[in-house]
Amino acid sequence: MLESKVYVSRRKALLAQMAARTAEGNRGVAVFLGNVDAAQNYRGNDYKFRQDSSFLYFWGVDEPWFAAILDLDSAEECLYGDDVDIDDIIWMGPQPSVASKGEAVGCARTQPLAEFDKAVAAAVAAGRPVHFLPPARYYNQMKLAELTGISNAAVRKVAPVEAGGASEELVKSVVALRLIKEQCEIEEIDKACEIGYWMHTEARRGCKPGVLEQDIVGRMEGVTLSKGWGVSFTTILSQNGETLHNHSHHQVITPGRLLVVDAGAESNTHYASDFTRTYPCSGKFTTKQREIYDIVEQANELAFSLTRPGTSYWDVHCATVKFMLEQLKALDFVRGDVDEMVACGISGLFMPHGLGHNMGMDVHDMEDLGENYVGYGDERQRSPLLGMGNLRMARDLKPGHVISDEPGIYFIPALIEQWKREGTDKGFVNYDKLAGYYDFGGIRLEDDVLVTPDGARRLGPYRLPIKSSEIEEIMSKE
Amino acid sequence: MLESKVYVSRRKALLAQMAARTAEGNRGVAVFLGNVDAAQNYRGNDYKFRQDSSFLYFWGVDEPWFAAILDLDSAEECLYGDDVDIDDIIWMGPQPSVASKGEAVGCARTQPLAEFDKAVAAAVAAGRPVHFLPPARYYNQMKLAELTGISNAAVRKVAPVEAGGASEELVKSVVALRLIKEQCEIEEIDKACEIGYWMHTEARRGCKPGVLEQDIVGRMEGVTLSKGWGVSFTTILSQNGETLHNHSHHQVITPGRLLVVDAGAESNTHYASDFTRTYPCSGKFTTKQREIYDIVEQANELAFSLTRPGTSYWDVHCATVKFMLEQLKALDFVRGDVDEMVACGISGLFMPHGLGHNMGMDVHDMEDLGENYVGYGDERQRSPLLGMGNLRMARDLKPGHVISDEPGIYFIPALIEQWKREGTDKGFVNYDKLAGYYDFGGIRLEDDVLVTPDGARRLGPYRLPIKSSEIEEIMSKE
Repeated sequence: MLESKVYVSRRKALLAQMAARTAEGNRGVAVFLGNVDAAQNYRGNDYKFRQDSSFLYFWGVDEPWFAAILDLDSAEECLYGDDVDIDDIIWMGPQPSVASKGEAVGCARTQPLAEFDKAVAAAVAAGRPVHFLPPARYYNQMKLAELTGISNAAVRKVAPVEAGGASEELVKSVVALRLIKEQCEIEEIDKACEIGYWMHTEARRGCKPGVLEQDIVGRMEGVTLSKGWGVSFTTILSQNGETLHNHSHHQVITPGRLLVVDAGAESNTHYASDFTRTYPCSGKFTTKQREIYDIVEQANELAFSLTRPGTSYWDVHCATVKFMLEQLKALDFVRGDVDEMVACGISGLFMPHGLGHNMGMDVHDMEDLGENYVGYGDERQRSPLLGMGNLRMARDLKPGHVISDEPGIYFIPALIEQWKREGTDKGFVNYDKLAGYYDFGGIRLEDDVLVTPDGARRLGPYRLPIKSSEIEEIMSKE
Repeated sequence: MLESKVYVSRRKALLAQMAARTAEGNRGVAVFLGNVDAAQNYRGNDYKFRQDSSFLYFWGVDEPWFAAILDLDSAEECLYGDDVDIDDIIWMGPQPSVASKGEAVGCARTQPLAEFDKAVAAAVAAGRPVHFLPPARYYNQMKLAELTGISNAAVRKVAPVEAGGASEELVKSVVALRLIKEQCEIEEIDKACEIGYWMHTEARRGCKPGVLEQDIVGRMEGVTLSKGWGVSFTTILSQNGETLHNHSHHQVITPGRLLVVDAGAESNTHYASDFTRTYPCSGKFTTKQREIYDIVEQANELAFSLTRPGTSYWDVHCATVKFMLEQLKALDFVRGDVDEMVACGISGLFMPHGLGHNMGMDVHDMEDLGENYVGYGDERQRSPLLGMGNLRMARDLKPGHVISDEPGIYFIPALIEQWKREGTDKGFVNYDKLAGYYDFGGIRLEDDVLVTPDGARRLGPYRLPIKSSEIEEIMSKE
């Protein structure tokens, strides 16, 4: 937990944001539901508790069964939760009071959780605007629908509050605040990056022929459970790197293949890191592998060098895919005018995802609030093209933005065959050359980057080795 | 996944169970919802997928977004799920078809998931009984309410199917089958116990003064993620062992204290293990600690020796707490007639939980179906006493039952003070003696036991060291 004044100042800033988006005299209430326990297989046997990120950001309490209301007209605020009884003490130990939890985050007023339901019902009955964020968890979806009388489906739809769903005003206000990281947040992300560094170091050391992928994953995840909360997302560790989010780990490390490791840590304060490295399973790249690897490594470096205030991540993405297409053209994978290829989205065949995404308490920060609100805002429209259209962060860059820089090149047989069949490539693609790459897999290289006033900084105290020569040298010694 | 004939035979047995509990000609349909992805912090960033245990038991498919219907009148069956498209292939890789997944579990008929909703709606519209299990996950709760028109709250209430809620007939049928483990299940539990053995070995080796509790937890959980699915429940590792389910791990291992480690593994096939050991943090027990430890160790052994067909776990619990009270009387913690103490529930002060619980795919097997259906059936009524009333398994023992054997003794200051204040102890307790144990903590020792035709077997290939002398010797060498 951070200092109480941090939470006080965030709620004050939220009031100001909402004041700019709502009409004086009838602003209504902003309602925040914390998360409840999520059953793993039955209620009482729960997944490790993860608080809702926005709840954590404004109200700080990292425990289940809490809620809060901020009155946008009177600026009154109240934290809702229940004190424990003797049964709870036997099972969970003595616990601080709800009042003291409120005090720790600068909220003077606390009430039992049942009062929250009544307060929301009273606001609804009085016809006051009830602002809430689209709920990520099903319990909160069901609960908000019950409390407001809105349907299960509608409580997830973001629109101006009078439409009777999740509040666009509140979404925009929260995004405006959470998108620009405070100094105390940057310090926490640096810590998450350090844990991520040790996770990936464990992975690289485990990448030896004959080892089961799951064995490496377990050891990596053990590192982050020892040093932090756990993984910031399900670990991707696969010799089928052409599958972007492969979560099966039953294969054995096999010489000649590539191992993509995309994994990150969540710190005990719930900030995320997210790194990707790609290793040659035999410790040395083949010539074919190194050619592609070096393009991706240079693309990662190029994107970093372009990341600074005064440009947009949309433009950084475009410049990076243009560079990759130029290099792929030099290797005869594509033929023709590179600018035209960029305009037609040809890069999507090789990199069907975007260059990066916002990061913070969520590894794709605030994705539950809507990708376009977070990554695009009112500045620009999403592209319909494969690859470009999957770009999650396109905004003008500002100091305090934290983003991933993760170019990749993949050879996805099903996608290549589809483009060939449907002529999607408009004649730019050399399928004869691609035919020799159906068993190649994929390569992705990812760092986490902070936009600073005069440029950018890679987050974390150390950078994971990335140059092909560096990787080979270090793997030969491990 | 097991052989397809296992699933076929389970569904056949379920039809027979349901035939015995429903009226011919109007039996209706049994509806099974698999689990969907559960958001960690936002949808798309999910906890590691865990299938619903009953779905897995009857339908085998270990993936999200599946459902199934078994027609109890016609014996027709259908598995519902969606085949993947090109977008899914890019992100998740090529996937076997739903038809082939059905085939793998002996279910010839498969349909897209949207057809499931229609089939349930049709059954409801036709007035046929719709049997479903009480949903553990909130999505399934919300979905069942939407499909059947029953309220969110009512779909969780188990009663005869005509009451319009979760089906008691189905609950009883499923319990009857899952409670008696098949040979193939026992083999899987043995594997989960082996992983649990290695987790606990890591914990014992990590129990050294100066080490952070979280560091040990991470390393233990790394073991089960490397060798199995993960933890069968959130690891309890605490020097405040008097708190039964303590999940905070921020303390440093401190000489003179006791460390309770209650943790288990879930195998890749989703069977659970659950062991508890208690270690002296300095490697040697004090005299005070050893006195209590040896009582608990002997209680664990006594309970095991009594576990066999022809008795009930209710009786084993009673005999074990009686033994512990006799020993505590010898140490002057309690005074008076031990049989009267047992009858008054005095043991609840020292062991507020029951001797054990059923185990299987869930560490508390089928707890989502209702503890009394699972652990009591129609055989006996739950006791209102603290401790005895928390006994989760009281049934007559039968070959194939798998249960935990986990006696404990705790000194819980808040509970002792409450009993003293309220006279709950009826004069049996020597509070002067207890006054010297407020900083003692607690001790619990737990093994997993299979009831065999002629007795019982401790599960797993190796037993974790348990005798106080053994523990001290092995800790001195590690």
